[in-house]
Amino acid sequence: MKKVVTFGELQLRLETPGLLRFCQTNQFQYSFGGSEANTAIGLVNFGIPASYVTKLPHPDMGRVARSFVHSFGVETQHIVMGEGRMAVYFFEKGNDLRPNQTISDRRYSNFSLSSPEEYDWEAIFEGADWFHFTAITPALGSGLPAACKDACAAAKARGMTVSCDLNYRSVLWTAESARTVMESLMPYVDVLIANQEHAKQVFGIDVPSVELTDSAPDYSGCQQMAQALAKRYSLQKVVITLRGTITQRENLFGAVLCENDVCTIQTPYRFRVDERTGAGDAFTAGFLYGCKTGMSGEDALHFGAASCAFKHSVPGDVCIASVSEVAAIRDKHEPD
Amino acid sequence: MKKVVTFGELQLRLETPGLLRFCQTNQFQYSFGGSEANTAIGLVNFGIPASYVTKLPHPDMGRVARSFVHSFGVETQHIVMGEGRMAVYFFEKGNDLRPNQTISDRRYSNFSLSSPEEYDWEAIFEGADWFHFTAITPALGSGLPAACKDACAAAKARGMTVSCDLNYRSVLWTAESARTVMESLMPYVDVLIANQEHAKQVFGIDVPSVELTDSAPDYSGCQQMAQALAKRYSLQKVVITLRGTITQRENLFGAVLCENDVCTIQTPYRFRVDERTGAGDAFTAGFLYGCKTGMSGEDALHFGAASCAFKHSVPGDVCIASVSEVAAIRDKHEPD
Amino acid sequence: MKKVVTFGELQLRLETPGLLRFCQTNQFQYSFGGSEANTAIGLVNFGIPASYVTKLPHPDMGRVARSFVHSFGVETQHIVMGEGRMAVYFFEKGNDLRPNQTISDRRYSNFSLSSPEEYDWEAIFEGADWFHFTAITPALGSGLPAACKDACAAAKARGMTVSCDLNYRSVLWTAESARTVMESLMPYVDVLIANQEHAKQVFGIDVPSVELTDSAPDYSGCQQMAQALAKRYSLQKVVITLRGTITQRENLFGAVLCENDVCTIQTPYRFRVDERTGAGDAFTAGFLYGCKTGMSGEDALHFGAASCAFKHSVPGDVCIASVSEVAAIRDKHEPD
Amino acid sequence: MKKVVTFGELQLRLETPGLLRFCQTNQFQYSFGGSEANTAIGLVNFGIPASYVTKLPHPDMGRVARSFVHSFGVETQHIVMGEGRMAVYFFEKGNDLRPNQTISDRRYSNFSLSSPEEYDWEAIFEGADWFHFTAITPALGSGLPAACKDACAAAKARGMTVSCDLNYRSVLWTAESARTVMESLMPYVDVLIANQEHAKQVFGIDVPSVELTDSAPDYSGCQQMAQALAKRYSLQKVVITLRGTITQRENLFGAVLCENDVCTIQTPYRFRVDERTGAGDAFTAGFLYGCKTGMSGEDALHFGAASCAFKHSVPGDVCIASVSEVAAIRDKHEPD
Amino acid sequence: MKKVVTFGELQLRLETPGLLRFCQTNQFQYSFGGSEANTAIGLVNFGIPASYVTKLPHPDMGRVARSFVHSFGVETQHIVMGEGRMAVYFFEKGNDLRPNQTISDRRYSNFSLSSPEEYDWEAIFEGADWFHFTAITPALGSGLPAACKDACAAAKARGMTVSCDLNYRSVLWTAESARTVMESLMPYVDVLIANQEHAKQVFGIDVPSVELTDSAPDYSGCQQMAQALAKRYSLQKVVITLRGTITQRENLFGAVLCENDVCTIQTPYRFRVDERTGAGDAFTAGFLYGCKTGMSGEDALHFGAASCAFKHSVPGDVCIASVSEVAAIRDKHEPD
Amino acid sequence: MKKVVTFGELQLRLETPGLLRFCQTNQFQYSFGGSEANTAIGLVNFGIPASYVTKLPHPDMGRVARSFVHSFGVETQHIVMGEGRMAVYFFEKGNDLRPNQTISDRRYSNFSLSSPEEYDWEAIFEGADWFHFTAITPALGSGLPAACKDACAAAKARGMTVSCDLNYRSVLWTAESARTVMESLMPYVDVLIANQEHAKQVFGIDVPSVELTDSAPDYSGCQQMAQALAKRYSLQKVVITLRGTITQRENLFGAVLCENDVCTIQTPYRFRVDERTGAGDAFTAGFLYGCKTGMSGEDALHFGAASCAFKHSVPGDVCIASVSEVAAIRDKHEPD
Repeated sequence: MKKVVTFGELQLRLETPGLLRFCQTNQFQYSFGGSEANTAIGLVNFGIPASYVTKLPHPDMGRVARSFVHSFGVETQHIVMGEGRMAVYFFEKGNDLRPNQTISDRRYSNFSLSSPEEYDWEAIFEGADWFHFTAITPALGSGLPAACKDACAAAKARGMTVSCDLNYRSVLWTAESARTVMESLMPYVDVLIANQEHAKQVFGIDVPSVELTDSAPDYSGCQQMAQALAKRYSLQKVVITLRGTITQRENLFGAVLCENDVCTIQTPYRFRVDERTGAGDAFTAGFLYGCKTGMSGEDALHFGAASCAFKHSVPGDVCIASVSEVAAIRDKHEPD
Repeated sequence: MKKVVTFGELQLRLETPGLLRFCQTNQFQYSFGGSEANTAIGLVNFGIPASYVTKLPHPDMGRVARSFVHSFGVETQHIVMGEGRMAVYFFEKGNDLRPNQTISDRRYSNFSLSSPEEYDWEAIFEGADWFHFTAITPALGSGLPAACKDACAAAKARGMTVSCDLNYRSVLWTAESARTVMESLMPYVDVLIANQEHAKQVFGIDVPSVELTDSAPDYSGCQQMAQALAKRYSLQKVVITLRGTITQRENLFGAVLCENDVCTIQTPYRFRVDERTGAGDAFTAGFLYGCKTGMSGEDALHFGAASCAFKHSVPGDVCIASVSEVAAIRDKHEPD
Repeated sequence: MKKVVTFGELQLRLETPGLLRFCQTNQFQYSFGGSEANTAIGLVNFGIPASYVTKLPHPDMGRVARSFVHSFGVETQHIVMGEGRMAVYFFEKGNDLRPNQTISDRRYSNFSLSSPEEYDWEAIFEGADWFHFTAITPALGSGLPAACKDACAAAKARGMTVSCDLNYRSVLWTAESARTVMESLMPYVDVLIANQEHAKQVFGIDVPSVELTDSAPDYSGCQQMAQALAKRYSLQKVVITLRGTITQRENLFGAVLCENDVCTIQTPYRFRVDERTGAGDAFTAGFLYGCKTGMSGEDALHFGAASCAFKHSVPGDVCIASVSEVAAIRDKHEPD
Repeated sequence: MKKVVTFGELQLRLETPGLLRFCQTNQFQYSFGGSEANTAIGLVNFGIPASYVTKLPHPDMGRVARSFVHSFGVETQHIVMGEGRMAVYFFEKGNDLRPNQTISDRRYSNFSLSSPEEYDWEAIFEGADWFHFTAITPALGSGLPAACKDACAAAKARGMTVSCDLNYRSVLWTAESARTVMESLMPYVDVLIANQEHAKQVFGIDVPSVELTDSAPDYSGCQQMAQALAKRYSLQKVVITLRGTITQRENLFGAVLCENDVCTIQTPYRFRVDERTGAGDAFTAGFLYGCKTGMSGEDALHFGAASCAFKHSVPGDVCIASVSEVAAIRDKHEPD
Repeated sequence: MKKVVTFGELQLRLETPGLLRFCQTNQFQYSFGGSEANTAIGLVNFGIPASYVTKLPHPDMGRVARSFVHSFGVETQHIVMGEGRMAVYFFEKGNDLRPNQTISDRRYSNFSLSSPEEYDWEAIFEGADWFHFTAITPALGSGLPAACKDACAAAKARGMTVSCDLNYRSVLWTAESARTVMESLMPYVDVLIANQEHAKQVFGIDVPSVELTDSAPDYSGCQQMAQALAKRYSLQKVVITLRGTITQRENLFGAVLCENDVCTIQTPYRFRVDERTGAGDAFTAGFLYGCKTGMSGEDALHFGAASCAFKHSVPGDVCIASVSEVAAIRDKHEPD
Repeated sequence: MKKVVTFGELQLRLETPGLLRFCQTNQFQYSFGGSEANTAIGLVNFGIPASYVTKLPHPDMGRVARSFVHSFGVETQHIVMGEGRMAVYFFEKGNDLRPNQTISDRRYSNFSLSSPEEYDWEAIFEGADWFHFTAITPALGSGLPAACKDACAAAKARGMTVSCDLNYRSVLWTAESARTVMESLMPYVDVLIANQEHAKQVFGIDVPSVELTDSAPDYSGCQQMAQALAKRYSLQKVVITLRGTITQRENLFGAVLCENDVCTIQTPYRFRVDERTGAGDAFTAGFLYGCKTGMSGEDALHFGAASCAFKHSVPGDVCIASVSEVAAIRDKHEPD
């Protein structure tokens, strides 16, 4: 099977043990995470070959980071190793009334300072038929919109599918900048994944919000949004993801797919949230797994949603799950 | 007070810390567990003398295993120490949608390869008036049905009570083998503890299942089963245990006792499941505690059920609980 | 801003990791706690200067204890360092049906054996306008009622406000002793915080209890109690705190304030209980923060209740929380 | 084989991990230790039955302490469980120029406050032929000299051997008190173990010291001391133990035995000191093992010294060692 | 560069933390090791591509084991995943007088039970020019001598170099069996690495031993041995490795190379032994690195010895080292 | 006593546990360190009041860092809290042949980007009579030479003593830059501490090196250097520190003081190196303690050297030591 290529930043995650606050311990658990790495690892866990592209510092923490990704079987040969620092985030897990606390220290990372010519997309795309990135990547540094554009153009030139998760991070850029950059990239995108809020903020699509916590949610706004996006950017598939918050530890996740102007609604999952980070990436991994293995859009949507629901029970950024584990969740899933 | 003797395999339990999956850590917590050891330890914690019989390897892990059992005050002098390996299981605690994962590595253990003549039941039963085993023991190796039979025969010859927990494990043997072996042992058994499913699979007793999650469960099938078993095998007491699953972390436990053709229903407990392993053994320990201390069958059933409910809040295989802790649970228990 | 002075015992807290019982581990996490220290730290976390007064042993654990308090920014220069031992408690966190287990080893602590003349209240109260203590302090040793009285008298002589949390501990003294001592101290007290049970046991105020778990609780008994206390002891403010227990892990917290004969009811919070220890102290810290920063009594009550609710999500004795974190809880709070 | 009975205090040991100082961590490793418990455990590890007598508090830490001793196979049925607290010590392992730091919190322990009549020596000595204690025991509390005397008298009345380790602790009592008490106990003692310094301080035997670090140590002072003690107190065997300090981490250990007026010199061992605590108790266990199994005095001395040397490589108070492990050390031992 | 293929068993290593003995902890650190895996990982750390061949169980621990190897960049695609158990060993690190303790539980591993036809050497050797194994591999199970022979034959047929480390383990087979099997494999071997003892035991070459601890060691016996082996088995290169033991924690390592009948002596390294396991494999990795990168035999020998010396400072089985780290050791190395 | 003010960068230290390499663990111990913070903490541990000045980020890790310093009793009120990131370093402890590995991630820290006007020296120096900094501070960012100059000038204007440790770090700046900046600061300096290498590199003083490992070191070059520096920069006191390396784990430390043109030689200490980081700062703390408490220069030198030697036995950057602990080392110190 041809491989999926993902492109983005990898962060060192430093997390307090258990439920301790930063000032209550002198220990961190560490691992690594990043939206596109999470998706690549998720795909490999599902049996889909994937190659992850980023830039990392060559002293040891960069090599440990690369080994982490590699240990799952993700191809890491196109990771650029260079001077500089790697992105870090400090994480304190919340607990009921107390929210998670994240301290980001990703500025000045050597990835964010990297330039388009450091990435040789021709070599990278050898043996690949799918390229995936999120809107975090172009938001991180001045050279990265061009790097994304290069990647998208090279992918399209090779006939590859391009997917994008519209992960809008207001701490990284303004909605205006996001819109400008993302609109320049949308012509290359085939598959768009977004939540309602981001689609509204970045693309200005203003429709009534779906509240999953309603007893019988009205998905019409969501469907309009998906159809509008599909039309405006000539997209093959649009997925609108939906999260409902019962409490901080009890959430709902659903999704709507629009393909060929037809919308499919994924009946929401309800689950306890052990770790929310990376849940969207787990959806993407599951959904792409479905697409790559020839599932119908509806089946891919179901598998993606099950993968996402499962992720909430796995600590860390990465969805450690096998196809059979996700399928078991999906098969037991019944509409509430 | 005369002691209870239990006979079965002890396993080394290797467990990931917290909620981590196997590939997310380089640490295991370790302890030991085994159905009959759990029951013996539970009994001693309740003040009932108990002796545990098994075979363990004499190098250090076997000695550490024996010390673990001994630390609770269980008599370990009849544990056979010999060549070979000890059974191991790897355990990853589940979390909401993600189920527990157990990797068993108990094959070829020196207990499973042991032969009947290694156990000197005359010496073992000195000072004992009760023998307990589970259907796991004869399932583990070719010499163990005979060893169980020797034990049962010796126990009956001394006028001891014999109890058996019909713990049917389909990964260890077929229902047919189980039936053949267990039917050869049933003539010696006075007290049988079983759940509905196992009684059906092994002894073919087919009655309507009780669903504890029903608002007003119909226990009649369960009562029929208990009465049928009591009659078929001339049993003094039959306990049918019942588990209801609301979610993976929220369960119900109830039980029905048939004694002298009269059935008593134990109103179910509802509890969060921190650790389900060993809960049945905690029931047995509590029920035997009641029987040994002269409680009525109904009171013993209540104490056993409270012990079982309490166990779900204790990590590991073993029910670390005192009589007063269990009694506190029981006394606060009100029918839902 | 002028500082708050608190006076009481600091204990070394030795806690098993995770949910393990004492016999399941060979490790303790350690930290420190004590009602008045918790309140002082809570205040400093909210930006209010505080000085904590106690007696500690001068060898290392005493110095580590003092450093712990100091690390938060609490003034520790008036802590008396001397011979003797420090109070210890062993803590095993409960889990659903299994309650917390605390083994206290505070007898013979050098604080409990300290005498009134060891505390130089004139020097201690330099720059202070508020003195706070709980009824635990005078209960701990024979010299401590006098020490509390000295402190109260000195505080009143300087025109400071005196607050007292009527934390009645039946393991430390009888209700009669408590009444005798506390009645001798009440003339100095301006602000009293108490729960219904303690006010009844110590001061004999017998009114109908408020059950927070009722769908529409009737607060009238509580209001009568507050008004009776305010009148009997000429108090500026009386707060009656209320806890409702849905399960061991799911609680409610509310409070009623009586000021100038007017009662305000704080709509209860509902939360998961990760750690209940120190929740009352977190209320006090929040309430005093409100009082010191010029909030209305009602607003101070709300802030105190939010601080208390937040504390249940923080491990340990101490409420690690900022004003903005507590305010976020308060602002999201809606009556059930 | 008849058992050895030992009598003394058990302490909870709280130790910082690795080489951290108290203020650098929030964790303790915990275990238990006490001179006489260490010896009893050492004996059982060598296959000699032993019963340990002490008093412990009945709440959980006391039960955990008892389980710790029991896990090794030591008989614990004569441990008195009662009200009160248990002795604690905090331990920070030193490192080259930095010495170990121990903070003792053993005052007011329920053992130290126990009275002679709490110990039923007739029942305790059932099946025993040897009683061992150290001079720490009578130093701990006012009732303990009488308890020791009762034990000694009962032992002698039954024809048991009595051994004593003259462990003089100046923080617990003065040399004068020690002399008075120990002289009242010496008539019962058959086997005395002491180092040069303690024999001098307590019994005033002033002879030239042996310096093991000398290239060819002159043992004559040591031999005189042993002979003088043997004569003065009509002892069967006297062992004088010797420690030489090359650096804090590199020590020597030797011993001299006087029996029937004949002295045997044990060529010193040289070893790295991982943990010095309990090394003397390991000597005693090894030496008593030799005596109980019919070794010559010289062979028992060699085994004891090897056991002591081995202990320095084992963390904690207790010598975890088998006969074959100690014999391997002894057999490789060659005079320097 | 063409890759090196290694073939052998991978073991799960369960190790107590710090210096604790098995009965002093309830935790294991875990990692993986095996002579041939260690060499493959060492090679990849030095920049030489390597593929590791073994058989592992497909449930999770097998996958975690494979990920461990893969994380370093070793090719793992030819690892056979199948039913069964994986080899385990328990490890307790020694300390001065106390030796390491290893409890092996590798019997019945699915690798040891594997049969020759499970390994497709034609596919495995694609892109390889070197095959390496140790004498442990054929000793593990009845199918493994044939598997080794198949591998050797296929390797020679492709013109690859074959190297073998004559690691004789008397617990696995007798010297006679070893000789029979190894003599059948020697015709394929080009490069032999052995220590004096193993060469003597397996091949009966009886020459005077070299004692590295001598002030001026006489290497003549060692040279004779190397020359005799080279001649008898027509070997390209023979390395005799030498270890000298000053204390358990202070060792020497040297080696002698015989190539074209010329012997080169490697001046020994002296170092502290933190972890001896895998040191020989580190030598092999370093020596093969030299051979693969075109170093002279002498230079390869020096690099191998430096790699081996460095390994003693790295915990675990695997030599985590870069070329520059090893070169730094080598460059600082001066003859004693 | 008037306080000492120190000024420099604080780093978050992330360290692997035990002897593990970065890729062998998923845990970090964390603490904080920085040359000037280490000295301030050391001083407070010795009873000298100290205030530490730096800039830290205001989100949580900055606050935790500040609390760390504050917990020791150092005044932290003049620490500037602002936007940005804090300096980080990753640390892997070496082991015999394997050197320590440090990965620095301090670039772009908000301290290094801070400007002179952020520090209000008039307010900072209230109550101070000594200012200390190291040459690391001006090397870190473009605004810091001016900040140091401002501090020096303000200190001199108030009649304070200024001390400087000439810690030249070639990774931060060139020798030329260092010389230019340091020469502009030397007019303000009263007390200079430097090692031979740095004095040579920065100030070009080329004299024969002292080799402490020589059996009878020749200190004349060192004395010339001290005298030359004292003369060239009109210094009150010059200390030249000397380190001798026997092995990575066995070092020597000595120092030479020149005061009023008279030189004093400190006989070197020999010690095992557990942790070398912060040893120079421990010397400074000890030496300044001596100066501040009125010791003679020679006595201050001795105390500083003992403090430095002691530090090598304490994990982390900071010298956790009391006056009595250091004095004990000093008093036992005898010339080799």
